[in-house]
Amino acid sequence: MQRYQTVRAEDIEKIHETSLKIMEEVGIIFSYAPAREILAKGGAKVEGETVYFPKGMVERELKHVPSSFTLHGRNPEKNVEINTEQTTFVGPYGSPFVLDLDKGRRPGTLDDFIKLVKLCHMMNNIDIQSHISCEPSDIDVDIRHMEMVYQTMKYSDKPLMGSVLGYEASKESIELTAIAHGIGLDTIQDKPVIASIPCTLTPLSYDDKMAGAIIAYAEYRQPQLVNSLCLAGATSPATIAGSIALQNAEILAGIVLAQLVNAGTPIVYSASGSSIDMRFGNLSIGAPEGALFSLVNGQLAKYYKIPCRISGTLSDSKQVDSQTGYESMLTLLMAQMAGGNFILHAAGILDTYNCTSFEKLMIDDEIMGMVKRIGRGVTVNDDTLALDAIKQVGPRGEYITNKHTFSHFRTEFYQPLLSDRARVNQDGLTIEERANARWKKMLGEYVQPSLPADIDADLKRYIEKRK
Amino acid sequence: MQRYQTVRAEDIEKIHETSLKIMEEVGIIFSYAPAREILAKGGAKVEGETVYFPKGMVERELKHVPSSFTLHGRNPEKNVEINTEQTTFVGPYGSPFVLDLDKGRRPGTLDDFIKLVKLCHMMNNIDIQSHISCEPSDIDVDIRHMEMVYQTMKYSDKPLMGSVLGYEASKESIELTAIAHGIGLDTIQDKPVIASIPCTLTPLSYDDKMAGAIIAYAEYRQPQLVNSLCLAGATSPATIAGSIALQNAEILAGIVLAQLVNAGTPIVYSASGSSIDMRFGNLSIGAPEGALFSLVNGQLAKYYKIPCRISGTLSDSKQVDSQTGYESMLTLLMAQMAGGNFILHAAGILDTYNCTSFEKLMIDDEIMGMVKRIGRGVTVNDDTLALDAIKQVGPRGEYITNKHTFSHFRTEFYQPLLSDRARVNQDGLTIEERANARWKKMLGEYVQPSLPADIDADLKRYIEKRK
Repeated sequence: MQRYQTVRAEDIEKIHETSLKIMEEVGIIFSYAPAREILAKGGAKVEGETVYFPKGMVERELKHVPSSFTLHGRNPEKNVEINTEQTTFVGPYGSPFVLDLDKGRRPGTLDDFIKLVKLCHMMNNIDIQSHISCEPSDIDVDIRHMEMVYQTMKYSDKPLMGSVLGYEASKESIELTAIAHGIGLDTIQDKPVIASIPCTLTPLSYDDKMAGAIIAYAEYRQPQLVNSLCLAGATSPATIAGSIALQNAEILAGIVLAQLVNAGTPIVYSASGSSIDMRFGNLSIGAPEGALFSLVNGQLAKYYKIPCRISGTLSDSKQVDSQTGYESMLTLLMAQMAGGNFILHAAGILDTYNCTSFEKLMIDDEIMGMVKRIGRGVTVNDDTLALDAIKQVGPRGEYITNKHTFSHFRTEFYQPLLSDRARVNQDGLTIEERANARWKKMLGEYVQPSLPADIDADLKRYIEKRK
Repeated sequence: MQRYQTVRAEDIEKIHETSLKIMEEVGIIFSYAPAREILAKGGAKVEGETVYFPKGMVERELKHVPSSFTLHGRNPEKNVEINTEQTTFVGPYGSPFVLDLDKGRRPGTLDDFIKLVKLCHMMNNIDIQSHISCEPSDIDVDIRHMEMVYQTMKYSDKPLMGSVLGYEASKESIELTAIAHGIGLDTIQDKPVIASIPCTLTPLSYDDKMAGAIIAYAEYRQPQLVNSLCLAGATSPATIAGSIALQNAEILAGIVLAQLVNAGTPIVYSASGSSIDMRFGNLSIGAPEGALFSLVNGQLAKYYKIPCRISGTLSDSKQVDSQTGYESMLTLLMAQMAGGNFILHAAGILDTYNCTSFEKLMIDDEIMGMVKRIGRGVTVNDDTLALDAIKQVGPRGEYITNKHTFSHFRTEFYQPLLSDRARVNQDGLTIEERANARWKKMLGEYVQPSLPADIDADLKRYIEKRK
């Protein structure tokens, strides 16, 4: 499969060089003192809270980043290889609100959270559970991160992501996952079991929590999606090139920090910026600029030979409609064509990250299937060229009863889940109504993966102790 | 802009070689005797109605096809250059039904037809009018093709397409257009003014009407989209590679016929097949296979150095919904990435070509704008890299009031027409309702381009004489 490259190799070099200048000359604020100490020890110049990164230091640390790693699930059959070639799809992350056809838009609860985990567990197109499938707003904030890690592991045995709300919350996420995997904290360094997404505070700063998260995950050598989300025109220049150079400077700074803590810590290059809509001053995640960001981010990550996170199926629409359809297809297709390896938000997101929709989760399952079919491409060989069948059938003949058709259509044709393709709409339902019926049917068929009683007790005890 | 190539150059060679074998060994039925005579004279072997094409003959005739031409509009400012690099967008073509939010789905009428012509005239993203913007079912079939050419020229001065319903109807379309352009039939050979889309009868045959159309348009050296639409699994193999080899054989046969009639006749390579849905046995135009067809068709046309038609914004949905959104974005984006030069059905089509929707026309206008923004790509230079602005703003600053933002956002950011990007849906409308309001507003603002009274009288007289 060819990747779609929107800028030239020399443009990527220019962006890289600009980022290095930003790091060296403008600097990046780290409010978290332990991070500044580590960076200073590693060769950075520190003035107040601002850290200046010499070019040689950045290039030295980038060499430690592995180009692939395995993210382990509780069920080893669901382990996922993260490298610079393969594409993996990850659930929706971080919406405070949920939406469905029955109850409308409302703050997420633990009940919604568990339903989303169950659905992502059952969706073959989803490889990895997110951390905040939605915000369970009815759970005490102090233990919410632990509860989410616990509930995700209880209802799914796919690999998962953990909290980045500071050093302690990160450690708790990792330790809970270690318990579920039955491994000690001394050996977890050799087995990535939980991914995280520490985010910069654009422009050019890291807050205490995120810097703490980077240090914690690096200490246990757990994978990090070092992430920058710029709002081009607000927190970064109104040009895609400039915004990407700025994002890249922030990301490289985070990568350097992680490598200084523990060389070889698995990294996923994660940039997720887009433009703002100047009429409202707020982010647009469905904008074509966002898709262009994805393409260039992908090219940059390949340049660094680091796996990359790119977002998929993003939409600014407030409901499931034509707009969610065209924006989601654009963003997911470009994520794949950009060579995205860790496609976060591969399903469910709308309302500019504010909301996760149960119906959209199902419709995006269709979009994921279609995009994967595009990715499989076209096989050209003697068998698929079918000259014998064409000779056999001849002019004005038919292929529907031909043996060649029967031996190929199942692999060649994508089988839709929800799309209406009949001559006349057969069930009289809209696709949104079919999506609604499908997630309810799936929840009815859900089977919980086993979690040994002693491990479950240990997990509960761990959380209880920290209340 | 990079093109997205899903198969290797050697695969394209294999498809080409297979097509030549099909043409030489299986042959193609031409029921129309004049076409067989021309082909026989050109070197083909004819047995009954089947024509066998020697490889050397095909290769010889392909050399006459120009790689570019100008399609002239009544208004010279709206002339369109058709070549192998540029992308032009063309209106919806051929639906018997129309759909809008007010009156639902119904057979198209002249009133609908004129409205669609007016809207396509006003849409900046549409470069060329189609021939059958919708079927005007209330117009007598015998003169319908002339009426459509006349009404299209009356309400729009963009370039247009004409009838392919046989030799006579084709000539009438051309002659009407010559009158509107005020040029004689003796000089029209040097000025392409009307494009046509003669279609094969897959597998491997041409009916009388389409072969007659090829001859008529070639006689006047007017552009032809020589088109094959296979239904993979029904009228062609269930493999994309085999179907494309078969389509290509048909298209090459039509190109050879046109070139034998008049060497140098402008051609647009036009393949539009997709897979059938095996549950229903009918075509799916929104299937990912269709988009893969487009990619390979684009590669083939580039191999022949001939401009190519690829379809855009296709959907199988029966209403304007999430499905029309994701299918339309997939097909149009791939049409552009495939290097499509003449994007037919760039807006409006749903229900597997059976229906054109007024609201979808507006929503696809948004999709066209977004896809064009993707095509423009990312400019990387010192100005867009914005290092000075980044230094000026520094860490934790803001860009919204920065001069660099003001001088770039208008060109860098796509400005949406209908997409909801506000924090809260501002008008309380769905995008379909906004689309409905927009086409009505546009019709209210429509200004008819001038058509000299004497030419109008000549056109009417021409049609009257043939009643």
